[in-house]
Amino acid sequence: MAHQFRNDLAALKADLDGVALEENPALVKQKSRDFFWYSPVLKAQLDHITADLVATPKDEAEVIRILKAAFQHEVPVTPRGTGTGNYGQAMPLSGGLILNLAEMNKVKAIFPGRVIAEPGAVIAQLDAETRAHSGQELRLHPSTAKTATIGGFIAGGSGGVGSIRWGGLRDIGNVLRLRVVTMEAEPRILELTGWELHKVMHAYGTNGIITEVEMPLTTAYDWVDVLVGFDDYMDAVRYADGVGNADGLLVKELATVAAPIPYDYFLRHQKFLKPGQSLAIVTVAAHAVDAFLALTSRSKGEVVFRSDTAEDLKGIPPNYELGWNHTTLRAIRVDPSITYLQSMYPPPHHIEKIEALTRLFGDEVPGHLEFVRFDGKITPMGLPMVRYTTEARLEEIIRIHEEHGCPIFNPHRYTLEEGGMKQTDETQLAFKREADPKGLLNPGKMIAWEDPEFDFTSTKTFLFPGLQQAS
Amino acid sequence: MAHQFRNDLAALKADLDGVALEENPALVKQKSRDFFWYSPVLKAQLDHITADLVATPKDEAEVIRILKAAFQHEVPVTPRGTGTGNYGQAMPLSGGLILNLAEMNKVKAIFPGRVIAEPGAVIAQLDAETRAHSGQELRLHPSTAKTATIGGFIAGGSGGVGSIRWGGLRDIGNVLRLRVVTMEAEPRILELTGWELHKVMHAYGTNGIITEVEMPLTTAYDWVDVLVGFDDYMDAVRYADGVGNADGLLVKELATVAAPIPYDYFLRHQKFLKPGQSLAIVTVAAHAVDAFLALTSRSKGEVVFRSDTAEDLKGIPPNYELGWNHTTLRAIRVDPSITYLQSMYPPPHHIEKIEALTRLFGDEVPGHLEFVRFDGKITPMGLPMVRYTTEARLEEIIRIHEEHGCPIFNPHRYTLEEGGMKQTDETQLAFKREADPKGLLNPGKMIAWEDPEFDFTSTKTFLFPGLQQAS
Ligand SMILES: Cc1cc2nc3c(=O)[nH]c(=O)nc-3n(C[C@H](O)[C@H](O)[C@H](O)COP(=O)(O)OP(=O)(O)OC[C@H]3O[C@@H](n4cnc5c(N)ncnc54)[C@H](O)[C@@H]3O)c2cc1C
Ligand SMILES: Cc1cc2nc3c(=O)[nH]c(=O)nc-3n(C[C@H](O)[C@H](O)[C@H](O)COP(=O)(O)OP(=O)(O)OC[C@H]3O[C@@H](n4cnc5c(N)ncnc54)[C@H](O)[C@@H]3O)c2cc1C
Repeated sequence: MAHQFRNDLAALKADLDGVALEENPALVKQKSRDFFWYSPVLKAQLDHITADLVATPKDEAEVIRILKAAFQHEVPVTPRGTGTGNYGQAMPLSGGLILNLAEMNKVKAIFPGRVIAEPGAVIAQLDAETRAHSGQELRLHPSTAKTATIGGFIAGGSGGVGSIRWGGLRDIGNVLRLRVVTMEAEPRILELTGWELHKVMHAYGTNGIITEVEMPLTTAYDWVDVLVGFDDYMDAVRYADGVGNADGLLVKELATVAAPIPYDYFLRHQKFLKPGQSLAIVTVAAHAVDAFLALTSRSKGEVVFRSDTAEDLKGIPPNYELGWNHTTLRAIRVDPSITYLQSMYPPPHHIEKIEALTRLFGDEVPGHLEFVRFDGKITPMGLPMVRYTTEARLEEIIRIHEEHGCPIFNPHRYTLEEGGMKQTDETQLAFKREADPKGLLNPGKMIAWEDPEFDFTSTKTFLFPGLQQAS
Repeated sequence: MAHQFRNDLAALKADLDGVALEENPALVKQKSRDFFWYSPVLKAQLDHITADLVATPKDEAEVIRILKAAFQHEVPVTPRGTGTGNYGQAMPLSGGLILNLAEMNKVKAIFPGRVIAEPGAVIAQLDAETRAHSGQELRLHPSTAKTATIGGFIAGGSGGVGSIRWGGLRDIGNVLRLRVVTMEAEPRILELTGWELHKVMHAYGTNGIITEVEMPLTTAYDWVDVLVGFDDYMDAVRYADGVGNADGLLVKELATVAAPIPYDYFLRHQKFLKPGQSLAIVTVAAHAVDAFLALTSRSKGEVVFRSDTAEDLKGIPPNYELGWNHTTLRAIRVDPSITYLQSMYPPPHHIEKIEALTRLFGDEVPGHLEFVRFDGKITPMGLPMVRYTTEARLEEIIRIHEEHGCPIFNPHRYTLEEGGMKQTDETQLAFKREADPKGLLNPGKMIAWEDPEFDFTSTKTFLFPGLQQAS
């Protein structure tokens, strides 16, 4: 595939009269970055990356104009929500244009059980509107809900708060419909539902621009945040597993974080915690608190924080901003040498696997589990922190996890395949052939497109030939 | 324990001036029966049973008056909702008084996520009120929702429609609070929450009278009933297992029924069905229909009925009245020689177990599965129909199930233990000692009370010495 694009910016600009454009290099660079710097590996590879230009469409018609012109003048286009991805998803590896969707942020219609919105709607804002309208909210949101867009979540995320109840975005029913514009001489508008949604979901915007989403809603209850402290991390893990499997408990978030992470890095909660305490982080519906406390009373845990009885919540972030990648973020803020992995502990022997790896690595890899439903079963997904030394040791830690039957989804890779299932996604590839024949959308992120011969069984990292050179 | 009660009815009546009483033998007998006749075994044992008197309190104060008087005059008291139980739960084995709670049926208060009601509220009526009030409904209801009371469900039922999402009544969080009146010289009022609820839940009213319930609510969506036909029953089973494990699909009811049951016995649906067709019975939220059909399109099933597109729903019962014990009811109505069992197929090898038993018994035991969440896992519970020949053969069928690792909850027994876990429930027994010291509440249903020496490992059926003699 071609990696050198004509990138005729002058001609592009001439065609985009009236569209909001930004060329100031500092501002363009700002909009060319995401949270890739979480990974020391990606930081070294991508720090210099920047686009040439940012376009901010105000509606779908402008998106179509921009794609049409970019197609004609062979300008690569990388869509962007708010750039909270962790793997450089939103970074324009070959420069070109950033398609900033942040201004397309309207909530268009709300019905019982569903909402229709523009892709740039910020998730917390969307939830606030559906709650005010009819006491509803999204089933799932990333821990970045306050900043991330719904379009960016669907194109670049996987799940999060709510996944303990609803599984992940990939699960059929968790996205209802997507409206997508293709990157062609005459961009087409497609409406995808059912299995077709998988063509563009979690495809990093490599094969179409999402211009409208229809998402299922669930009931927005009053949610109560609870922290349960444990002396022994494995007691916290077993407890959380029990809470997750209690079918009558309406829980929205369920995680465990091993000592010393909570006391050392959850600075705003430190006053509630003891050094050496591991935590279970739980968010439960107000009407389920009684039952939840009954369950907790039979564990070795001690309730150290409850948002419904705490005297002063000022400055205390919600529980979900202690979980998911916020756990890592809080740790990195205090100790920048920390990084992380993404792992999975398949049931039924998940507890044994977690115990073995916890023993093996000790404080080099402090545990962090997010309990989610996965194919119907409560499954702990790991975002263990890693006290980073070398890339070689990181690879070794990954290998040891895999040897224990725990797959790793490598967050130190910017391609879809290496961060995911380590194989070609034929559906997404076929759709890219159809919807982006010149390969202009977010180049370098889909290996199957760039290098059909790439050997996923090798341990080699994919090197995108079109990667902008560091100057 | 005493099985001969003084049963001084004249003194009792004298004390109950102003309380609604019924003594007409035909009407009393009517209120002394439930659906015990489903079982040919129970029918032979209990057909003659009747109380002496029915009292219908209008409020808790009258309940207290009745219990106090009955205690003093040693009149056995058997509470009753609407008598839809299948195991003779509500039948007064030693005569005495029926405490008919049907008139205590007010919905007292509705909040986000919970409702407070009197025990005699009919479930469908309760759901209608919470739906009209704030678009909410109960998480779980028995298939008898249109006639059964909420108090009777909690005291005599186990789960039902909604259990695919929320598990069973026994799961912590599925009942929030019960107000209970004891059977003592001075009846006490207790408020039970958390683990204490298990003292009286599914205790057949043997250790307290429930006078108020607080139940969690969930969102009342528009529900769509779908029937999916399969040529091979095991394809229906595998399909339903997949639907149950699809975490993003909001499903409220999920069952399978083997041919020839649907065509032969679901007479009102016969026009939609083919002879020899097995069915998956599914109820899905309106906003989940698209995703549900996408999933179904990858199965061998054919959608034969959809309530959202059917031309004329007149005379067509809702899907839930094809499931649970309504499946059996429909079969018995056409062929009275049919009876049933209650079984469980523990995962992860549930499919293999079902297949083995299906092959082994063929049309003697046509399959019926209700998929529910059980300890976090999607688990098929069986209500297989049995073409009844002899009690000995029925016992043999039970034994073969157990040999295959599939526990049977015997619906041909009127005691708590024999129909359930075949062991003493120490919590319920201890509470009976405290709340019903004379053993006057629903005598004969708790073996641990009547015969502490009873050997649950034997295959002998418990014989209650106080059982009213057939005249
Ligand atoms: C602290 C922290 C916590 C996080 N927690 C979670 C979590 O709980 N769960 C989770 O899944 N992720 C999580 N993430 C990752 C990220 O926040 C989410 O994926 C987020 O939803 C991305 O939204 P965004 O608007 O920032 O998207 P961006 O980062 O802007 O974009 C994400 C990807 O989608 C593409 N894209 C954006 N908009 C469109 C569009 N309209 N059409 C086509 N493609 C588009 C971009 O090109 C990019 O490839 C976390 C990240 C951080 C830093
Ligand atoms: C066709 C059919 C389908 C069914 N489907 C289901 C199903 O899906 N799920 C299920 O769980 N069951 C099912 N059942 C059984 C039964 O319908 C349910 O258990 C139902 O909820 C009982 O309610 P009821 O008001 O009829 O109770 P009753 O039969 O009147 O009483 C049930 C038991 O509770 C006691 N009781 C009643 N009220 C009180 C009170 N206020 N305080 C203390 N004790 C009390 C009674 O003494 C009795 O032991 C079904 C039965 C039939 C016939």
